[in-house]
This record gives sequence, structure tokens and C-alpha cells, in this order.
Amino acid sequence: MSADGGPYTLAEIAEVIEAELSGRGDLVIHGIADIRDAKPGEIAFVANPKYLKEAAQTKASAVIVSKSVQAERISPGTAALYVDDPYLAFAAVLSLLAPKREKRVGVDSRAVLGDTAAIGEAVWVQPYAVIADGARIGRGTVVGSFAYIGEDAVIGEDCLIYPHVTIREGSRIGSRVILHSGVVIGSDGFGFAREGASYRKIPQVGTVLIGDDVEIGANAAIDRAAMPNDATVIGNGVKIDNLVQVGHNVKIGDNSLIVALVGLSGSVELGQNVTIAGQTGLAGHLRIGDNTVIAARSGVTKDVPSNSYYSGFPAIKHSDDLKHQAYLRRMPRMAEEIRALRKRVEELEADRGVSHSAQK
Amino acid sequence: MSADGGPYTLAEIAEVIEAELSGRGDLVIHGIADIRDAKPGEIAFVANPKYLKEAAQTKASAVIVSKSVQAERISPGTAALYVDDPYLAFAAVLSLLAPKREKRVGVDSRAVLGDTAAIGEAVWVQPYAVIADGARIGRGTVVGSFAYIGEDAVIGEDCLIYPHVTIREGSRIGSRVILHSGVVIGSDGFGFAREGASYRKIPQVGTVLIGDDVEIGANAAIDRAAMPNDATVIGNGVKIDNLVQVGHNVKIGDNSLIVALVGLSGSVELGQNVTIAGQTGLAGHLRIGDNTVIAARSGVTKDVPSNSYYSGFPAIKHSDDLKHQAYLRRMPRMAEEIRALRKRVEELEADRGVSHSAQK
Amino acid sequence: MSADGGPYTLAEIAEVIEAELSGRGDLVIHGIADIRDAKPGEIAFVANPKYLKEAAQTKASAVIVSKSVQAERISPGTAALYVDDPYLAFAAVLSLLAPKREKRVGVDSRAVLGDTAAIGEAVWVQPYAVIADGARIGRGTVVGSFAYIGEDAVIGEDCLIYPHVTIREGSRIGSRVILHSGVVIGSDGFGFAREGASYRKIPQVGTVLIGDDVEIGANAAIDRAAMPNDATVIGNGVKIDNLVQVGHNVKIGDNSLIVALVGLSGSVELGQNVTIAGQTGLAGHLRIGDNTVIAARSGVTKDVPSNSYYSGFPAIKHSDDLKHQAYLRRMPRMAEEIRALRKRVEELEADRGVSHSAQK
Repeated sequence: MSADGGPYTLAEIAEVIEAELSGRGDLVIHGIADIRDAKPGEIAFVANPKYLKEAAQTKASAVIVSKSVQAERISPGTAALYVDDPYLAFAAVLSLLAPKREKRVGVDSRAVLGDTAAIGEAVWVQPYAVIADGARIGRGTVVGSFAYIGEDAVIGEDCLIYPHVTIREGSRIGSRVILHSGVVIGSDGFGFAREGASYRKIPQVGTVLIGDDVEIGANAAIDRAAMPNDATVIGNGVKIDNLVQVGHNVKIGDNSLIVALVGLSGSVELGQNVTIAGQTGLAGHLRIGDNTVIAARSGVTKDVPSNSYYSGFPAIKHSDDLKHQAYLRRMPRMAEEIRALRKRVEELEADRGVSHSAQK
Repeated sequence: MSADGGPYTLAEIAEVIEAELSGRGDLVIHGIADIRDAKPGEIAFVANPKYLKEAAQTKASAVIVSKSVQAERISPGTAALYVDDPYLAFAAVLSLLAPKREKRVGVDSRAVLGDTAAIGEAVWVQPYAVIADGARIGRGTVVGSFAYIGEDAVIGEDCLIYPHVTIREGSRIGSRVILHSGVVIGSDGFGFAREGASYRKIPQVGTVLIGDDVEIGANAAIDRAAMPNDATVIGNGVKIDNLVQVGHNVKIGDNSLIVALVGLSGSVELGQNVTIAGQTGLAGHLRIGDNTVIAARSGVTKDVPSNSYYSGFPAIKHSDDLKHQAYLRRMPRMAEEIRALRKRVEELEADRGVSHSAQK
Repeated sequence: MSADGGPYTLAEIAEVIEAELSGRGDLVIHGIADIRDAKPGEIAFVANPKYLKEAAQTKASAVIVSKSVQAERISPGTAALYVDDPYLAFAAVLSLLAPKREKRVGVDSRAVLGDTAAIGEAVWVQPYAVIADGARIGRGTVVGSFAYIGEDAVIGEDCLIYPHVTIREGSRIGSRVILHSGVVIGSDGFGFAREGASYRKIPQVGTVLIGDDVEIGANAAIDRAAMPNDATVIGNGVKIDNLVQVGHNVKIGDNSLIVALVGLSGSVELGQNVTIAGQTGLAGHLRIGDNTVIAARSGVTKDVPSNSYYSGFPAIKHSDDLKHQAYLRRMPRMAEEIRALRKRVEELEADRGVSHSAQK
């Protein structure tokens, strides 16, 4: 195999993504491109059947398509790599061919290391990172400039802590975790008790536990738990988008997705493989079952069972919400129908008067 | 009294929270826990009556409950501390028993102090904080790593400025204020004037005034006022959650609560003791009266009087909004009723035809 | 002309804003104030006719008003500057009279400059900024403390990069751009492919292109494009407010405005001069035509044509949305009308029975 970032031959690529290759295996691929823009020497993909017509006209040297695609749908000069899941295969090829940023090793002299901080092998600590006393950084992790790692925080192996991440004291983070710039882990939860006209702060003395393979987007905030021996928990494989708010004591099950600008109130519990779409909000203490999807801009006010698809505010089953939307669109017609009925009733009433008098 | 972080005897704790103690005063309490998880040596609390059943089964050595709770509701081996407000008492005990982070004193040599910056006694300035010319830091305040305190900004006593806080020039902040990581104070407001096809920036030259005992959550943004001699004002005791947007010239009255992801547009004025729940938005220039609550995910488009509870978009009285929601849920029934009426009218009309012809 | 920040004579100010002056040109103006608070020596403005009554009572030495305003509407002791657009003229005067912050030149010794970073003339790099290898900073730009400029990023001339801005590798930024504290440019987009029970990250290897005269508010996040040779594009003159999320591959046309807490999903395309009001969300891949306005708190689920005004969720034409809102408000009346009709139909039916039996 050639060095990181390629180029690779089609045969090599086919091997990596376990594709059935139709075309010359010795063709050299230099880069990846969108199917519409791709030039000779580049590889593209089609995952969505509605873009298949582009495959017939592409100038790409090769295209990754589903095994269900017929050979005649592909441009004559273009090789085809048939796979089960073109999008997943494309992700693998992108990892292979994308230009790699240099990864250095070592602790920059302008970083601050607490006396008892423990730094693993092959770690790169960039200038002006601060790693406080008792913090531990696992092997192969990158700690960016202006990252702040608080006392006794623990970070696993091969993590990517981008510049300007704040990890407050005592937080524990798994391996292969990516934290984007501006992320705050372990800030105090929003807990206050009334004391006369004002509020008294409830000290927030729990912590945050983040699993392996988690990614958290720019400027998202994850509050620490309120109570000692309790934690806000982000499960393995969870992906959180930019500007998401995760309140204290929240538990998020493995492989859940939380899209941008979502707010999870305190003590919310999400099952595994839950998707919360953008700008949705959940009230405190709710439980959302496994495999459930909450649509964008929903407001969830009650527990939601597993394997559900909910939307709206207050959020209900999406199928019911669609009916509800349809009724809303029918309102002008309903008003018209009421008007028409009133007219017909008036005529009947007038007629009855006639009929009555006719009988007299 | 023992050292910070305990342990304390029950009698000592009872004295601090002014509780009536039923049990042995010499019992030693080492920690705090949730009523369901508490072990011997720990103290728990019950504020919500629906969790009282847990008090009957807890293994906690002591439990803080309301004076209205009967003794037989508490587990036999557990001491009881009777107070007026268990949640508030719990907050006090948590402050007492929570492990204390070391507070150091001094200006780290890697911090930048402007020539005319004034640093009070017992201040701790952490590595790589920047305090610009003319800024003043009050006695006992902590300025975290990567905090940026702009020219002529003034910070009161005993504040906690977490790492990565930005305080722009000229902002004035009271005492005992807590600013969480990523908070930006005094960014320019969003003010532009049309100039042909494009926009011209209105310079934002006012400032920000923050009272005493304010707490502002991670990654919240508070814009400075537009005009000279004007300020965006956050009153005493205000608590602002993560990722909240406060526009230019906003005034927030004392002891108000603003929950996560709320947006307050420019020149909004909130009275005292207002609560704005999560993800709500207020249009510009609105006034919200004292003691008013705006429910989560509301969109406020008009002024709201004092002592109100509003919800919905456009926000209306919550009682009206509930009726409105009930009408929405009745829509399928209304459609059905219209259908049934039409059928009955048709029959009446058909019958009238018969009746008419019968009369002929 | 006098030095930056004034004072200026009225004649000088009239010249700058091309105003028709009614009053003494040699009057000296020291500052700007709100029309209600202005004192002698200060200048104010009235753009909105409903504030004209203030102009009759102001103590300001001068007031900027529209050419359509009659002289007798102005307080007798106050000079008037007549212009076409008072708000725009005011912006110009504010720029003139606002106290100027000192702009220094040079690279602070505590900043980090990558070996191949290129710094233009008259640049000010503040303490603890980091500018990585290959980055280029244009003439006259200010790079604030704790700003992180990634490898090969390019920043134009006369930009203002506030403290705590993160610009990831390869991003390209125009001239006269203002990035407020906490802004993140070029974070990874939210792209994952299903792989069994978990997700595989799609490497995000595109970039970000930001035009000239752009302003981006505190803690906003702009993701980089997913594909190589693709970019998230922010056009010239675009103004983005605080806490806005811009997903990968989004294109924003020139002179568009995006208000706080808006979320633009991946691959959204906005035309020129589009306004997206606060807390609105757009689903992925949508196209919004030129000059279109989307009202606050809308949820856009379909393409929107040019020159439109949309609101609601799902967003529809604002005029239709207003009708829709009116129907919603009529629901109690509709329910009442149905009830009344039912009663009248029942009477008709009862009557028919009588009528029938009378005929027998």
C-alpha cells in the first residue's frame, strides 16, 4: 500500500472497501470528488438512486455504487466498484485519500503541565494548552492550543481535543473522542433553590462521563451532574452537533445522534440509538426509549416509548402529527362548510315557517 | 466546627440549617447522596412529597425533610432533620460537605497584566489569563486560564471567572458573579443600517453592567449596548443558563432566571423575578412585567403584564393557550360533527322536498 | 478635521453626512446620545416618525432627521441636520464621534507564529495568539489574544479577529471581516454513515470561504464543507448574529442577514439579501431565493422562492400564515357555531316529526 493520502490503484481501493470491481485494477486514483464535478483520476460515489443519472455522464475514473445498480447506468469510460453500502464505502475511501494533516508528538514548551499530570506516549500537546494537576492524557491524544484540562480530568487514547476546548475538573473521557473548538465539558448545571426573593446556588459536585468514539460539535455545552457520585453520561458512539445544550444528570445511550441547537433539560434519559433532530427541546426528567427519532423543532413534554417517531409541540406520534397538520390545513374548508350549513339550515327554517303557515 | 468539606456531626449540620433534629446529634456525616443511593454515613433529602416513600426505605444515616412530614414516614434507623424548605437546606449542606477545590492566591507569571491593571488582594490569576490596561479585579476573585479581561473592565469581589471567558472592554461586573467557560460579555450588538444593496455597521459603543450574585452559563453571549452612556443591564441575582443570547440594550430585572437557548432580542426589558424557560424567544423592545413566567419554547411578540404565566407562539396567557391546545385536539371531532350535521341537513332537505310535494 | 473621536463642529458633521444644516455651523458637538437623554453639546437622531415628538422636547444641540420633517417639529434651541436616511447618517456620525480604542501594531512576543506564517504590514497580533504554519494575515488586521489561526488559513486586510476566535486549517477569509469572540470557523460538519449499530465518521475535508465585509457574532459556528474542493461559502457583506449554526456546504449569498440562534442545516443555499430571523431553522439542502425574508421562529421544510416573506412551521407565505393564525383564533367560535347548528337541526328534526304527524 502506498503512503497516507494516496494515490492508490483501483484494485487497492476495491480491496479496502470489499468492492466488486468492474474496470482496470491498475488505474491510479488521485482524489475524490462529487459525482457532478469529478475529473479523470478521481473517484466519486452514488448512494441516492436519484443521482444515478449523474453516473451515466460523470467524467470520474471510477464510481462507487450499490450492487443493485445495472452496468449500463454507468458512464462507458468509468470503472464501477459495486458495494453493499456506497455511502459507507465512500467514507472509507475518503479516510484513505484525504490529505492528512501532520500529527506531531511531544509537549510544547509553552504548554502548562500540572505537577502530577500524566501524559501518555505519542501525545501532542500544542502551545498554550493547560493541563492541570492530576489530569491524565491517554496515548496518542492531541491536546490543542488553549485547551484547558482541569484537575483530575481523564482523557483516553487517540482523542482529538481541538483548540479552545474546556474540560472541567474530574471529567472522564473515553478513547477516540473528538471534541471540537469551544466545547465545554463539566460546566455547572443550572440548579438554584429559592431563598426569599432570591436564589441560592445548589453546588454542582457531580461529574461527566463520556464514552468511546464520541464526537461533540463546536460550542456545545455538557453540564456536570449535581450530586456527588453522580454523572452526566454520554454513551459510546454518541455524536453531538454544534451548539447543543446537555443539562445536568442527563444520560445519553450508545450511538445516539443529537443535532444542532437541541436542548436536553436536566435528568433527561435517552436510550440507545436515539436521534434528536435540530432545535428540538426536551423537558426535564423525560425518558426516551431506544431507537426513537424525534423530528426537528419538536418540544417533548412526556416520555416517549422505544422505536417511535415523534414530532410537534407538544410532541406526539409523527403519524398523528401529520393528521393534525392535515386538519389544520382543512380549517378554511371547515369554516366554509359551517357557513354553507348555516345557510341551508336558515333556508330550512324559513321553509318550515312557510310549511307551518301552509298547514294552518 | 471541622475543616471545609467535613465530616460534620448531625448536631453541627442541624445547627447550620436550623433544623429540628430527631436522632443522635453525635452521628458523623461523611457525605451527601441521592435518597435512593445513600449509604450509612451519608445524608439525603426529600423535597418532593412523591419521593417520600424512598425515605421509608433509605439506608442514609439522616434525611432532611419538611416539618410537615410525619415521623413514621422515615426509615427506623434514619435520623430526621425537619426544616421549612428541604431543598434550600440541602443546598446549604451540600455547600458544607462538598469537597472543596483548592483556592490559590497570586498572579501566575504566565498571565499578562496590562500596565495599569489593578489586582485586588487574594486574587488568583491562572496561567495564560490576559488582563488588559485599566482593568480592575476585586479582592478574592479567580481569573481562569485563557480568560480575557478587556481594557477598563471592572470585576467585583469573590467572582469566579472560569477558563475561556471573554469580557470585552469597559464591561462592569459586580461581586460574587460566576461566569462559566465560553461566556462572552460585551460583544457588539447586531446593528446595521441599510446603505444601498449592503449594510453599514452601527458602531456599538455602549457597555454591559452586571450586578452582584449573577451566574451565566457556558457559551452564553451578552452584547454591549449600542449607544454611548447606555448599557445592557443584568440585575442582581440573575441566573442565566448555557447558550443564551442577550441582545444589545436588554435590561434584566433582579433575580430573574433565563433558561438555556433563550434569545432576548435587542432592547427587551424584563422585570424582577421573571422566568424565561428554555428555547423561548422574545422580539425586540418588549417589556415583561415582574414575577412573570414564560413557558419553554414560547415566542413572545407583545408586552406581557406582571404576575402572568404565558406560553405558545404567539405567546398568550397559559390558561388560554391550554384551551387553545384543547381546541386543536378537538379538530378531528369538529370535522366529524360537521360531516354528521351535513348528512342530517341533507335528510331534512330531502324530506322537505317530500313534504312540499305531499302538500301539493 | 479634528482628531479621531472628535469633537467636531456641526458644519463638519453636516459635510460628512451630506446634510442640509439648519442652525449654527460653528457649534461644537462632543458626543452622541439617545434623543430622550441628550444634553447640550450632544447630537441625536430620529429615524422612526413615532419618536418625532421627542425631537420637539430634546435638549440635544442638534438632531439628525429626515428631509420630510417640518422645521416646527424640532425643539427651538436645537439645530437640525436634514438627510435622506437618518439612521444611516447616524451610523456615520457614531463612527466619527465614538471614542476610538487604540490600535497598536506589531506581533507580541508571547504570540506563536508558525515558521511559514506570513504577517502583513500594520498587523497587531496580541499576546497568546497562535498563528500556525502557512497561515497568512493581511495588512492592518488585528488578531486577538487566544485567537487560533490554523495551518494555511488566509485572512484578508483590516479584519478584526477578537479574542478566542478559532479559525481551522485552510479557511479563507476576506477583508474587513469582524469575527467576535468564541466564533469557530471550519469545524467538522456533522457527517456520519451507518455501520451496523454505530456510525462511521465521514471525514470533513472541504473548507470555508468567507467574503469581504462579513461580521459573525459571538459563539457562532461555521462548519467546513465535507468534500475536497468544496467549501461552505459566506458571501460578501453577510452579517451573522450570535450563536448561529451554519452546517457544512451551506452557501449564503451576498448581504444576507442571519439573526441569533438560527440553524442552517447542511447544503442549504441562501440567495442574496436574504434575512433569516431569530431561532429559525432550515432543513438540509433547501434553496431560499434572493431578497426573501423568513420570520423569527420559523421552520422551513421546502424551497422558498425569491422576493418572498415566509413564516410558521412548516413555513408558508406570511400572508397565508396570518390567515392560518386567524383561523386558529376562530376555533372557539367555530366550535360554538357547530353547537348552535346542531341545536337548530335538532329543532328542525323534531319539528319535522310534528309536521309529519300533522300530515298524517
